Amino acid sequence: MPTVAVQNLTLLTDFYELTMGNGYFLNGFYKKQSYFDVFYRSVPDNGGFAIACGLTDIIEYVKNLHFTEADIEFLRGKGIFDEKFLKYLRKFKFTGDIYAVPEGTPVFPYEPIITVKAPAAEAQLMETFILLCVNHQSCIATKANRIVRAAGGRPVMEFGSRRAQGVSGAVIGARAAYIGGCVATACTLTDELYGVPAAGTMAHSWVQMFDTEYEAFKFYAETYPNNAVLLVDTYNTLKSGVPNAIRVFKEYLATGKKFGNFGIRLDSGDLAYLTKKARAMLDEAGLTDAKIVVSNSLDEYLIRDLLQQGAKIDSFGVGERLITSKSSPVFGGVYKLVAVEKEDGTIVPKIKISENTAKITNPGFKKVYRFYDKKTGKAIADEICMRDEMVSEALPHTIFDPEATWKQRTLTDFRIRELQVPIFKKGKLVYKQPGLKELQEYCAREVAGLWDEVKRFENPHKYNVDLSKKLWTLKHDMLAQSGKKEI
Amino acid sequence: MPTVAVQNLTLLTDFYELTMGNGYFLNGFYKKQSYFDVFYRSVPDNGGFAIACGLTDIIEYVKNLHFTEADIEFLRGKGIFDEKFLKYLRKFKFTGDIYAVPEGTPVFPYEPIITVKAPAAEAQLMETFILLCVNHQSCIATKANRIVRAAGGRPVMEFGSRRAQGVSGAVIGARAAYIGGCVATACTLTDELYGVPAAGTMAHSWVQMFDTEYEAFKFYAETYPNNAVLLVDTYNTLKSGVPNAIRVFKEYLATGKKFGNFGIRLDSGDLAYLTKKARAMLDEAGLTDAKIVVSNSLDEYLIRDLLQQGAKIDSFGVGERLITSKSSPVFGGVYKLVAVEKEDGTIVPKIKISENTAKITNPGFKKVYRFYDKKTGKAIADEICMRDEMVSEALPHTIFDPEATWKQRTLTDFRIRELQVPIFKKGKLVYKQPGLKELQEYCAREVAGLWDEVKRFENPHKYNVDLSKKLWTLKHDMLAQSGKKEI
Repeated sequence: MPTVAVQNLTLLTDFYELTMGNGYFLNGFYKKQSYFDVFYRSVPDNGGFAIACGLTDIIEYVKNLHFTEADIEFLRGKGIFDEKFLKYLRKFKFTGDIYAVPEGTPVFPYEPIITVKAPAAEAQLMETFILLCVNHQSCIATKANRIVRAAGGRPVMEFGSRRAQGVSGAVIGARAAYIGGCVATACTLTDELYGVPAAGTMAHSWVQMFDTEYEAFKFYAETYPNNAVLLVDTYNTLKSGVPNAIRVFKEYLATGKKFGNFGIRLDSGDLAYLTKKARAMLDEAGLTDAKIVVSNSLDEYLIRDLLQQGAKIDSFGVGERLITSKSSPVFGGVYKLVAVEKEDGTIVPKIKISENTAKITNPGFKKVYRFYDKKTGKAIADEICMRDEMVSEALPHTIFDPEATWKQRTLTDFRIRELQVPIFKKGKLVYKQPGLKELQEYCAREVAGLWDEVKRFENPHKYNVDLSKKLWTLKHDMLAQSGKKEI
Repeated sequence: MPTVAVQNLTLLTDFYELTMGNGYFLNGFYKKQSYFDVFYRSVPDNGGFAIACGLTDIIEYVKNLHFTEADIEFLRGKGIFDEKFLKYLRKFKFTGDIYAVPEGTPVFPYEPIITVKAPAAEAQLMETFILLCVNHQSCIATKANRIVRAAGGRPVMEFGSRRAQGVSGAVIGARAAYIGGCVATACTLTDELYGVPAAGTMAHSWVQMFDTEYEAFKFYAETYPNNAVLLVDTYNTLKSGVPNAIRVFKEYLATGKKFGNFGIRLDSGDLAYLTKKARAMLDEAGLTDAKIVVSNSLDEYLIRDLLQQGAKIDSFGVGERLITSKSSPVFGGVYKLVAVEKEDGTIVPKIKISENTAKITNPGFKKVYRFYDKKTGKAIADEICMRDEMVSEALPHTIFDPEATWKQRTLTDFRIRELQVPIFKKGKLVYKQPGLKELQEYCAREVAGLWDEVKRFENPHKYNVDLSKKLWTLKHDMLAQSGKKEI
């Protein structure tokens, strides 16, 4: 089965992870406990937040991490890896700790989504695959969530397999879209593998295959009375498609039989105009129960506009613009070294300095608290702090903006939650994966807990993600020192 | 191994292909020989042409096409498929013909890239996967080719795995990028599976792992003297990175040892300014052989600008904007029914009419000729014609614009080539796959055979893709008739 679960994807790693791994092995660094954070810097589509996704595949990857003899032979052929390193790879497995936010969690820039603590050679090797999963799947879950919010409660189906970027783009993308809030997918394999309901009825070719559109509709409706959704735009939507659909529906109902779900799908033309006309025609024929589904290059912007113009739409099929996140196809998650342990166990924070302030990393072994207002239940702010810091719900807590430090705010009457949970401990999986439906519901609940201002598609209000005083001080001390230090 | 070759991806199909398949089975259409064309309508990034890619995975998919008992059980659970149909699926395999243009062929809008002739139930089921492969891989090969052309002979390495849309986005995307002209990839698995050379040296984390940048560089250069490319922007490119690299290079060379490939990589900042400064510093130190590699959100536009500004760059590492084709991430290939056979073997052309003229399909079983000028060797025009038409190199041939039919041109002294070649005949593979290097060379040769005017990144000259008189007449007769026909 084409899931990462059963495959050896150990070599799905940038080649430099291996040259570095070999180097760490040769100078002894490979055993050095290292801390890497995964975080992202800017929200896709200039939105207010992203939906974290990809953890499930990362778990399967980590569990399966190993080099086969063929892999090792392949690496040997490169002529640059030390034999002792290749021997070490034979027994290579993950022995570290991983902390991560659950899939479906709304996350904000600079927060550690995943933290890996492991010997350097292990942690380094995993960079590529971890980022690939987080970047791809968060990208799609985030886009799906935007589209689902635009649809305002109307079901959104993911219809993009044929335009996806590869097999996993389609199969795993559809799973991510479901976590983000889609109700179904066209991808049958995603149903078989993950239980995301597969949906769909007919293509234009079905209609063309028959001598007349009427016959095509009639046979379909009789074969599938529980989901008789007829595609009405093969020849002419209003002159032929809708009238033929109405004729078929009425003739079928006249026999005394009933449909389950039934209706029409429009896949071209001006969907605002056509759905209003089609709705009127269906209603006039007494088919007020007939549903109208639309598709054709939809996204959150077009859906919002269509609904704002009074289009009569019951559900949406969204393809290429969802499954590739067309308007924002890259989720820029990064994997940065934030600390290393000395042999005595002392954690030495590390920082990556950049002339671009936004690219300076937050050093140290950290965690994230989300603060919720006890009265409204809404999320108020997140705070990134050192792993050993504790915040108590019983005491007022002052947060401040890490850039405009004079902007302070004291929170009271809040509930807090640590966003990251332990996934692996010393190489052992300690996390119980929630079911997919549970993840979808969790995502919906957490997004509902954000203020509308944060959820605007354009120019959303910036949610507060603050640094604890301890972290802020550490970072600024390190920056000040770096100016003096010889590197 | 995570290649589509060894997997059962039969259910990677839109659910409606199965509902239609069941319908065709029930009314007997499933045996009807049907002809489907794959073509695309507009060139990504408004370019002049696309590079066809994806055929290899399609071949593997077709060879492996079958339903397992688990698949059938899964479908039975849906409660809508006829038992006889499910029984038919047990023995389901591909029995038809496939014609396709080889991977690496420059292709233009509306040309059939792939033509499937098969019983309706088979041809219908394959739609999703065929489109997925063609759309994803042509998208990436086309983008890679643009980027490689912008680099003007300087090597381009594909560095995007971590930002790819899923496992196959990374692994297969890197293969497509190689066909488009990239010389290497960061993705080690693509090297293991397909032989695309894997490349890469170090990340910022390598530098951070050491106490000083100098030590990090020194150890790397000594470990990998044949490819000592040092990443110089972890702290400060010109004040620290380049001077430390120079020191390491000079100290190493002073011992009398030699490097193979050596140099620096810049991954941030203004690459035009920094490479000029770095080049001057390296040259001044006598390191004129040291190469400069750059990366950081590059694409064809930025590469063109950097080179135009005199940036001193020897090679490029291109990541997210290549592996997702960020500026144009969807390749809009479609799969349209163009003909069905009657029981007596007569081919009945089919047309999909649309109010949008661009969406009207070319009916019938067709093929494509490419005309090359014998003197210059350049491609002059393509002609889409009926499968049974013959064009002779010995006779002048008149082509005309299918929209502006008065624009005619008589070609003489040309060489012709049929673009599609037979891939499957009656379910049997009859095509010998060229090696990957061969495909890359074929692509480069064919692109070299296009006029520069067609290769402009913006507003390229429109290459002539004409319809034969016979096809044009058929199409227009069908359109005229459709106005009268009751549908």
